[in-house]
Amino acid sequence: MNTLDALIGNLSRLPGIGKKSAARMAYYLLKADPGFAEKLGCQITELRAKVKTCSLCGGYTDSDPCELCQDPRRDHGLVCVVEQAQDVQPILQTNEYPGVFHVLQGVLSPLEGVGPENLTINKLIQRVRDEKIREVILATNPTVEGDTTALYLVKLLKEYPVKITRLASGIPVGGDLEFADRLTLARSLKGRTDFSL
Amino acid sequence: MNTLDALIGNLSRLPGIGKKSAARMAYYLLKADPGFAEKLGCQITELRAKVKTCSLCGGYTDSDPCELCQDPRRDHGLVCVVEQAQDVQPILQTNEYPGVFHVLQGVLSPLEGVGPENLTINKLIQRVRDEKIREVILATNPTVEGDTTALYLVKLLKEYPVKITRLASGIPVGGDLEFADRLTLARSLKGRTDFSL
Repeated sequence: MNTLDALIGNLSRLPGIGKKSAARMAYYLLKADPGFAEKLGCQITELRAKVKTCSLCGGYTDSDPCELCQDPRRDHGLVCVVEQAQDVQPILQTNEYPGVFHVLQGVLSPLEGVGPENLTINKLIQRVRDEKIREVILATNPTVEGDTTALYLVKLLKEYPVKITRLASGIPVGGDLEFADRLTLARSLKGRTDFSL
Repeated sequence: MNTLDALIGNLSRLPGIGKKSAARMAYYLLKADPGFAEKLGCQITELRAKVKTCSLCGGYTDSDPCELCQDPRRDHGLVCVVEQAQDVQPILQTNEYPGVFHVLQGVLSPLEGVGPENLTINKLIQRVRDEKIREVILATNPTVEGDTTALYLVKLLKEYPVKITRLASGIPVGGDLEFADRLTLARSLKGRTDFSL
C-alpha cells in the first residue's frame, strides 16, 4: 500500500470521518503550506505523551494538577461531576460555571461490566468529605446509564452535608415542542421553572 | 494555549472539519490504542517528504515514475486528462478505465491568473507527439473553467492524429429529473446515447 492510501486508511478510522473526507484531508495536507502537515503530525504523535489526566479532577491537562484545580479565582466549593474528560470543555464554554470539576471516567453499566469500582466514585466521596464542598452538580448525560449513575451518587452523597443538584433536562433552546420526544417533554414539564421569579 | 486546544485548532483547519469534529477527533486520539496516534502523526509528518509527483503523468506517487505509468498491463495508448492528482483515484476506482493519466495541475482561469503556461499542457502535447497515444479523454470537471480548458485542449490536439473524447455529463445515477438543473438536463439530452445498441 502506498503512503497516501495508508494515511487515508488511518484518517478514516477517526470518528465521523469516511473514506472521502479522509482523502480530502490527505490531499489538503499535501497542498497546504509545508509547515502545517509537519506541525500537525508532531502534535498528534506527541499528544499522548503531553496530555495527562489531572490527579485531582481527572480532566485532561498539560500540567498536574490542572489549571482549573489550581485556579484560585474558581469556586472550589462547587463541583460539577461529568462522565468524560471531554464533557468539561462544553460546560466551561457556557461561561456560566464558576466551579471545578470531577470526571467519573465513565458511567455505571452492568451490561458492559462497569461497576462503581471502575469509576472515580471513591475519590469523589473523599473530595466531598475532605474539601469544603457546598454543592455537587451531577452532570452525567440524561441517558439510562447517566441517570442511573446520578441516582447511585445521590444515594452515596446524601450522608454528607452537601447540596446535590442535577443538570436540567428538557427541550433544547431553539427546539420545537412538536418534535420533542415524550420523555424529554415529560422531563421539561416535571422540571418546569417558576416564571414569576 | 494547551496541547489539546492547539491540536484541536489545527485539526479544524482541515477541510470539512469544524471545531466540534476536531474535538471529537482529538479525544479519540487520546483514547484509541496507544500506537495509533503515534503512527498517524508520523504518517502526516512524513507525508510531504514521501509523496512525490510522477514526472510522467503528474499524479501522486511514492516512486517516480508512478505505478500506473510503469504498469505494462495498462493501455498506454489511452490517456485520461484530469485537473488534479486527486481526480485519478475516483476514475481508477470505477474499474472501467484501463489507460493511463495526465494531470494538468489546475484549469485555465484568467481571473485567477492561471494561463496555459501554468498547466502541464506542453507536456501533454509532447506526450501525444512522442508516445503512441490513440485517444485522449478530457476529464476536466464540467464547470466553466473545466469546459474552457477542455475546449482549449481540443484546439491544440486537433493537429495530431489522436481521437479526442470528453467525459459524458448528465444526470447522476440515482438522480432525479425533477431536481436536475437546466444545464445538466440540456447536456444529458445533447449527449443522449442510442438505446438500440
